[in-house]
Amino acid sequence: MSSISKQQKQQDITPEARDHFYEILYGRRDVRGQFLPDDVPDDVLTNILHAAHHAPSVGLSQPWNFILIRDAERRRKIYDAFVKANDEAAEMFDEGRRSHYQSLKLQGILDTPLNVCITCDRKRGGPVVLGKTHQAEMDLYSTVCAVQNFWLAARAENVGVGWVSIIQKEKLIELLDLPDGVVPVAYLCVGYVSEFLKKPELELAQWEKRTQLEDMIYTDTWGQK
Amino acid sequence: MSSISKQQKQQDITPEARDHFYEILYGRRDVRGQFLPDDVPDDVLTNILHAAHHAPSVGLSQPWNFILIRDAERRRKIYDAFVKANDEAAEMFDEGRRSHYQSLKLQGILDTPLNVCITCDRKRGGPVVLGKTHQAEMDLYSTVCAVQNFWLAARAENVGVGWVSIIQKEKLIELLDLPDGVVPVAYLCVGYVSEFLKKPELELAQWEKRTQLEDMIYTDTWGQK
Repeated sequence: MSSISKQQKQQDITPEARDHFYEILYGRRDVRGQFLPDDVPDDVLTNILHAAHHAPSVGLSQPWNFILIRDAERRRKIYDAFVKANDEAAEMFDEGRRSHYQSLKLQGILDTPLNVCITCDRKRGGPVVLGKTHQAEMDLYSTVCAVQNFWLAARAENVGVGWVSIIQKEKLIELLDLPDGVVPVAYLCVGYVSEFLKKPELELAQWEKRTQLEDMIYTDTWGQK
Repeated sequence: MSSISKQQKQQDITPEARDHFYEILYGRRDVRGQFLPDDVPDDVLTNILHAAHHAPSVGLSQPWNFILIRDAERRRKIYDAFVKANDEAAEMFDEGRRSHYQSLKLQGILDTPLNVCITCDRKRGGPVVLGKTHQAEMDLYSTVCAVQNFWLAARAENVGVGWVSIIQKEKLIELLDLPDGVVPVAYLCVGYVSEFLKKPELELAQWEKRTQLEDMIYTDTWGQK
């Protein structure tokens, strides 16, 4: 690596910083059952939102918004929409898995005082956005990058996050008054937790297994090892 | 925050680790013009892929695969597909912006010896996946979380990443022999760099401005401050 420049060397992340980063990345969890009622202080929440806002975005279009939902009545309506969807979901599993599915806790909407909806404005940046000309979904993908930044930054701040996807998007659009062209990408429960589980909850509950990394890697084309 | 449990306290990320995390998060760049020809060692690449593989995924379905593209001829064909799409893209901008667009370097496909395509298998986990029953795109979003983990872990390893989205997906499917149901989510150029720019390249080039975080935040419903 002789050509690595002096300029990069000055910007190098140290092995210690890298290891701290991995501690956070591997300690992140999709939290459902461990939320506490404590408020997240404004300065901590601002740190997390600032990190989300510095995600990569196609053409620097920054298509996201952050709706902070604290109102108990609105969260109750969103919880009701989850319950309806979750009942529908249970029916989709065959009998063998249904009772296992029904035994899982899959959200913490009312358990924590803060929910955050991260939205994508499909019109942001106008009709022609650099990098979106041939892949129209890039604005949605940019918004997901902001979600993942939010999730990791929350873990760095010792705050838990759970992504609730078992809900009709149309219901979220209605309950959050989203205008035409704005879609909900992630509905997040956010708060302090009693603990971060050592492994994903679905792995501990033996719902699914972690696959081996080497099975996911191909060389040059699909299927080639 | 009196109810924060002893168990969580034992798992707390320290302020020092958090600051290291933010150093990496804010130092991440979408690299286009600064790639060096040096190889990324296998152990470093494995660290980055391992981090990507530990992204959150809907129902723990882990719908991603990682295609490592080193073959020069294949990268040349992908580069040609970029050039075609980029010429088409330039025509979409009005005359005032076209020459600015054409002056931007938007990929490093041939500048670095490694490209990585992260794909999503839309059928992974079978016809009913926990968490995907009401939002079918959740597998794509999980894959984007893996992309963002990859990107941040690369920065932690002092490796640059650039996401190339100015290319027809159908062309990527053809050139990477993707089977039915597998879609390319991110085509990444990956390698060491001469430097990480201090700000996003599109901001430095005055293509777009960073918006203010406070303008992106609403309370309880859209538009409410």
